[in-house]
Formats: sequence, C-alpha cells, structure tokens
Amino acid sequence: MYVYLNDQFIEQEKASLHISDLAIQRGYGVFDFFRVRDNVLLYVEDHLDRFINSASIMHLSSPYPKEKLLSILHDLQRKNNLPDAGIRMILTGGYSPDAYQPVAPNFIIMQSPLVISDSATPKSVSIITHEFVRDIPEAKTINYTMGIWLQKKVKEQQADDVLYHMNGVVTEFPRCNFFIVTRDNTIITPDKNALHGVTRKKILELSGSGFNVKEAQVTLDDIRNAKEAFLTSSTKRIQAIIKVDGQPVGNGMAGEITTSLLNLLQEAEKEFVSKALRDKSR
Amino acid sequence: MYVYLNDQFIEQEKASLHISDLAIQRGYGVFDFFRVRDNVLLYVEDHLDRFINSASIMHLSSPYPKEKLLSILHDLQRKNNLPDAGIRMILTGGYSPDAYQPVAPNFIIMQSPLVISDSATPKSVSIITHEFVRDIPEAKTINYTMGIWLQKKVKEQQADDVLYHMNGVVTEFPRCNFFIVTRDNTIITPDKNALHGVTRKKILELSGSGFNVKEAQVTLDDIRNAKEAFLTSSTKRIQAIIKVDGQPVGNGMAGEITTSLLNLLQEAEKEFVSKALRDKSR
Repeated sequence: MYVYLNDQFIEQEKASLHISDLAIQRGYGVFDFFRVRDNVLLYVEDHLDRFINSASIMHLSSPYPKEKLLSILHDLQRKNNLPDAGIRMILTGGYSPDAYQPVAPNFIIMQSPLVISDSATPKSVSIITHEFVRDIPEAKTINYTMGIWLQKKVKEQQADDVLYHMNGVVTEFPRCNFFIVTRDNTIITPDKNALHGVTRKKILELSGSGFNVKEAQVTLDDIRNAKEAFLTSSTKRIQAIIKVDGQPVGNGMAGEITTSLLNLLQEAEKEFVSKALRDKSR
Repeated sequence: MYVYLNDQFIEQEKASLHISDLAIQRGYGVFDFFRVRDNVLLYVEDHLDRFINSASIMHLSSPYPKEKLLSILHDLQRKNNLPDAGIRMILTGGYSPDAYQPVAPNFIIMQSPLVISDSATPKSVSIITHEFVRDIPEAKTINYTMGIWLQKKVKEQQADDVLYHMNGVVTEFPRCNFFIVTRDNTIITPDKNALHGVTRKKILELSGSGFNVKEAQVTLDDIRNAKEAFLTSSTKRIQAIIKVDGQPVGNGMAGEITTSLLNLLQEAEKEFVSKALRDKSR
C-alpha cells in the first residue's frame, strides 16, 4: 500500500512525521475523507473544495492547486489498485520550530480498503446528546478531542453516537450531520455550527424534487416532535435515528422518508460511478 | 540531543511517529511542559502529577508509574546535559487501527534549550479577549486549535495574548492562567474551566503569608474594576497585564502586588533549585 507524503509516494509502513510536527505537538491540522467505489473517487471535487476551504480557514496553505491534487489522487488510486476504499487527506501545521506557529504544512494522503454495500433499508441507531460546539465548526479540523473522549459515555449508555447541542440548539455529530423530518414532511438540517458534509449537501440538493429540504434551527424540542430523524456521512450514508437519550423518535422505527432518501442517495452514487466510468472509457 | 520515545533514548532527528498515530489523525493526546534550571527539574512532581491526571481524564494509560517517569527524566537530563532547558512530555492516542479508538499510547519526552533570566520588574503585556472554553479544561490536552487559530487576530490587534471567557466569565489563556488584584488587594484567579497551572498553584499557596489569594468567579466587569491583572505560566512566570481589549487595567502600569509576586516566585524558584542541589550533593 502506498501513501503520498508531501511530494512523493512511499510505502505506508514508512510514512511518519517527525515529533516536531504541529499535529503531534498541538493537534493542529485539517483533513478530509471520501470513498472510492469501483475505482471511482466519489464526489471528489466536493471533498477537495472543502479540504482547500478548511485549510484556508485554519491559515494553512493548500499544498497544491485543486487540479494537481486531483491528479495525485488518481495516481495513488492506480498505484494501490483498491477498487473500494476510503481516502484520507491530512494537512498539518508542519515542523514548527517554536511548537506553536504553523509553518510549511505536512501533507498526507492515505488509503485503506472500505466496502460499503447497498441496502434497501437504513440501519437504525440510538443516540445520546451532549452540550458542546466544535471549536471552529466551519472547518474540518483534526481536533476530535471531545468526540473521542465521549466514546466511553456512548458505550456506557449503549448508544451508537452522540449529538452535539448548545442550550438545546442542535448542531452535528462528531463525524456526521443531523436531519429531522417534521410532521408536515419538511426535512431540516441545522443551519449553524455544523460542518457542511458532502452527503448533507446531496440531501439539500434534493429539495424541490418531491422533497422539501432546508437548513434551519433545530432544537431538542423539535426532535421530540419530529416524525423521523436521521444522520448522514460519507461512510454511513443515511442511518435512521430511532432513539434520542432513551426516548423514541416518532414511532420508534426507521421512517419512510429516511428510507426513500437512502435509496435515492444510493441511486445517485451508482449514477455518479457509471458516468465517471463512461467518461474514463471515452 | 536525545529524545525518549516509548521505551528508548534516540537521537532527536530520528524521533518520528507513524502517520496512523491518533495525534496526527485526530489531534488526540495530552502533554506537560516544565523548565530545567541549573540541572534541576523545576517542580517536576507537580508536573508529573498533572500529566498522569490529564492522561487519566482522557482515558489514556500513563506509560510508567511516577517514580519511573522521574528516573527517565533524570536520565534524559544527564544525557543531554542542558543546564537550562524546557522538557515536554507528550502522550498520544497511539497507532489506532480505526483512526478513532485510542490504543496503547505513544510516549515522547523531548528537551530544548531555554534560559529564563530573573528580573526585578515584570514584563507588561496587552491582551484581547475571545469567547471560548477549552473542550476539556481540566486536562492539558494537545488541542490548541483555537489558541493557534487566534494568533492571527492577536497579531492584527497588536496584542500579546488572548484571554478566553464565556458570557463574560473569564477562564484562562491558551497557555497561561489569569489573575486580578481587586481594589481591596484580594488576588483572584478563575475557579472554573481553567487548567490548574503549577505557577498558579504556587501563587495560591502564598495565601495567608501577607497576601489574600483565592479561586473565585472573575468577570470582564471585574477586570474593568481591578487594580492590577497578571498572567502566570512556567515559562513566563508572571507578566503584568496593562491593557485588555484596548482599555487600561488600573493605572495602566505593572502593579505593586504583581511585582512583589514575581520577586517572591523567583526567590521560591531559586530556593527550590538550591535545596535540590544540596540534596543531590549529599
């Protein structure tokens, strides 16, 4: 397996950073993660745009322009020859002499096998809530201090994940976005202090085509009154949230709209892959 | 220069972590930092206690018991032979197979030259404020996402540092503790959501011996009414805060109590060093 580190492809076992790197010293960096399906880099342009935006927000310079990044990603995909995989790009604060000021970043691209099968029905999950807002929610930073620390509480409460809120206003999961479906079938995702997930974007783009989808404030009370709730992420796609802090959501089962959206999302993914393969073979 | 990495002393240039480490992947880890003066490890027991406590809070297992850590630190000090230095211990979430669950931690001790000269008068600094509370304020985690991100704002406003508060209740700086001196000469440091700094502890221990020092809530309003304000840290010792968000504190100059405390702190430090050297030569 190969990894791209700064400016070259190296064997994964040999890919390391000196301890003076600002990720090791101060947890400072940004990243992005996306899937590869049938050798196609899924929604890669969306992920690259977000990666470059996260870097810019965190005052880190993108190592290469988008086109060059895309070409490196395609080279890595060919070298590793893993048709179904996850690819993670990390950009750290670099080898900082004073262990505080970001300098020329270190740039990593790594790949690992990841097969996500299609399913006609969404997985159902139980979640808990925790009062917290990510430090800089607009950026996809590598800071998961809270998310990882909360894993113990999540397990103790036999839940699958933890939803952040502040004063009852809901934002996001450590690694997923959140949606509710109201009694009048409006699909709402929190408008503030949540990362703009790529799957979240795909759901928002469905607005008008038979669905009413919008970004707005969502409170814990709104969840109690909701018909359905679900989470989205690139690896989890859509999962039905059937319980929040021990209380059932709606009728306590995966809802109709959640199920429809999962199927639409999977169709869109397959269509994206087919189109990319057609374009490639031309 | 030598570094201690996991279980051995290695040359600093060769000290690196594989990219699967949870500090690089998720910014997850704890650390501590202390000074060496005249070959004496300053207040090392306080720092080791805090390091072990931070690890425990963050669900990381301390690599060695305190006595063994102490002996490794002394060995490193002898090997590097740097009479005046800073020593940083870092404990990360380890080489996590799923890039999320902490596993057996990676442990780093690194040393660099650091000479802090004594001074009869404190340095004067201007600060700005920012609404934020550290993710897990009881632990000294490696997460400095916000502190480093704010450096740009600090520089733009020609300030020296940034003080965190939430709804007007003051907590701490990214790397220092905060104190005010009220009009009736009470010395107060925030009681909640602030790291228990070792220099902060030394100041609190002075209570009774001519000073009235306590932990209590401090608000931005309290600062406006204060006679003096100062910050503390192991490397900065005590610095007088003469301006907050452009407004002078008290008479806008380093205060009498701030100056007295700096001198007492320096005396205590010298006494600690003398005692350690006497004990060593026995």
